[in-house]
Amino acid sequence: MEQDSNQQRPLFIGIDGGGSKCRAAIYDADNRKLGEGIAGRANPLFGVEQTFSAIHQATEKALVDSNLPLDMQKSLIAGVGIAGVNVPALFDKVAQWRHPFSEMYLTTDLHIACAGAHLGGNGAVIITGTGSCGFAQVDERQLTLGGYGFALGDKGSGGWYGLKAAEYVLLSLDGFKPHTQLTEKLLHHYSVDNALGIVENLAGKPSSNFAELAAYVFICAKNQDKAAIEILKEGANYISDLARKLLAIRTTRFSIIGGLAEPLLPWLDDDIANQVQPALASPEVGAIYFAQQQMQKKLVG
Amino acid sequence: MEQDSNQQRPLFIGIDGGGSKCRAAIYDADNRKLGEGIAGRANPLFGVEQTFSAIHQATEKALVDSNLPLDMQKSLIAGVGIAGVNVPALFDKVAQWRHPFSEMYLTTDLHIACAGAHLGGNGAVIITGTGSCGFAQVDERQLTLGGYGFALGDKGSGGWYGLKAAEYVLLSLDGFKPHTQLTEKLLHHYSVDNALGIVENLAGKPSSNFAELAAYVFICAKNQDKAAIEILKEGANYISDLARKLLAIRTTRFSIIGGLAEPLLPWLDDDIANQVQPALASPEVGAIYFAQQQMQKKLVG
Repeated sequence: MEQDSNQQRPLFIGIDGGGSKCRAAIYDADNRKLGEGIAGRANPLFGVEQTFSAIHQATEKALVDSNLPLDMQKSLIAGVGIAGVNVPALFDKVAQWRHPFSEMYLTTDLHIACAGAHLGGNGAVIITGTGSCGFAQVDERQLTLGGYGFALGDKGSGGWYGLKAAEYVLLSLDGFKPHTQLTEKLLHHYSVDNALGIVENLAGKPSSNFAELAAYVFICAKNQDKAAIEILKEGANYISDLARKLLAIRTTRFSIIGGLAEPLLPWLDDDIANQVQPALASPEVGAIYFAQQQMQKKLVG
Repeated sequence: MEQDSNQQRPLFIGIDGGGSKCRAAIYDADNRKLGEGIAGRANPLFGVEQTFSAIHQATEKALVDSNLPLDMQKSLIAGVGIAGVNVPALFDKVAQWRHPFSEMYLTTDLHIACAGAHLGGNGAVIITGTGSCGFAQVDERQLTLGGYGFALGDKGSGGWYGLKAAEYVLLSLDGFKPHTQLTEKLLHHYSVDNALGIVENLAGKPSSNFAELAAYVFICAKNQDKAAIEILKEGANYISDLARKLLAIRTTRFSIIGGLAEPLLPWLDDDIANQVQPALASPEVGAIYFAQQQMQKKLVG
């Protein structure tokens, strides 16, 4: 009976496309979760076709998980937040996609993360997982900082920490820096005994391969490894500065999300760490809030 | 008449394959240059097929330039120095190539640069162009330092300087660092007015695109731009340290080659700058010395 009424009212899909994964979640019109799906990287900076294919896969998995037929995707209302579409040319490319949904509302992964964290309300978020970025929304005003991608930007992210760790270890193996625990950890991680062994594993690899190494920076720093502490502080100081700039526009709530949110917390400046509040919902749910808000605007406007 | 006698004695081709270009030069058995050719990137880290195709193209151009028929390549003795083949897996891949020459002697681009600079004798070289690396040879002993590629290593190279400049400028545009002349230069270079404009031009691009920006670091440093001076010094200090390590193995001659060799010289520590001697021949000629030495070893051994 409930299933029947759901099928008449619109279903929503929230999609969070990022540098390492694409997540989709299907919700009914009463905001009850029906199912979810995960696929690979959906970052149009590295190819729009790969992005579309990841969205397709995540959507199909979410439909299966929701016990819905695959052809149902054409009646889904999609909120889509994607990395990289803050670049106008990429926004246009993705917006022009002949998408499989009944409607698609597109914005950045940051925007949906913020909308999720603060249940569609005003607030600021820092995302630090494979990449890093800051976003704040106060009514119609948006502020985006950082998020320029690996290896140009993304300070304080997993990819950045992994790159800094690898750079340090390669310099230490050439004798330019002291050999520390971090050197041992990286050699052991790849089961190699020299610099070229590390290079073979990392050369030309995407940021997700570097982000795998970030954990060693945190582990070694905890063990008082000086090299790791220096790297960790440089990234954490950037995240604190980023938070300070976002909070300067007087947002009401502030969250840090992504894989490094928890481990970074003790390394942030106290004035920042004290203002961190939990994210209230996922970016996928944020994407659905975004879609619903846009639909409402269309109705009102 | 001379042409006829050349055709009976072996002809040599020296090939220098690097991150941005592949150069080939054909010499006769009396070490007289017949012609040369240039093609695109030949770095097997980014694909062996592209590397082989660049070698093919450079060879054909060199044959044309030498007024030799194209099918002559099968009688050429090739000395080939290629970036990245210090990685054993890549060395094997390239060594197993069904190459078009009568014989092929393979080594690193560093080795042939050193052999060229010192006319096949002992010595040390630092190459700093798009990438950076150090190499020294004393009889059978070789020392290779750095050269781990963009963006993992290659400190003090064009790619590295360009990356550091872009990183700085993006941070300055977000308000995390002072806006300096370097910021203006990069915005102007791409005819854009914001950070995303720069990112659109650099995201996912190879090191050669970053190396284009290195000149601005030198120009701005000359104009007393503090950000540029700091970046310039960090790279130059690494190059000085690299030289010090190479010279510690008591090589007889020391040269710095590549596009940044000249501009970096005034920024190196005096004890290093004073020891720099000119490179006596090109890496392509070094590749031919290498091939000839290997042939002699075969004869002797």
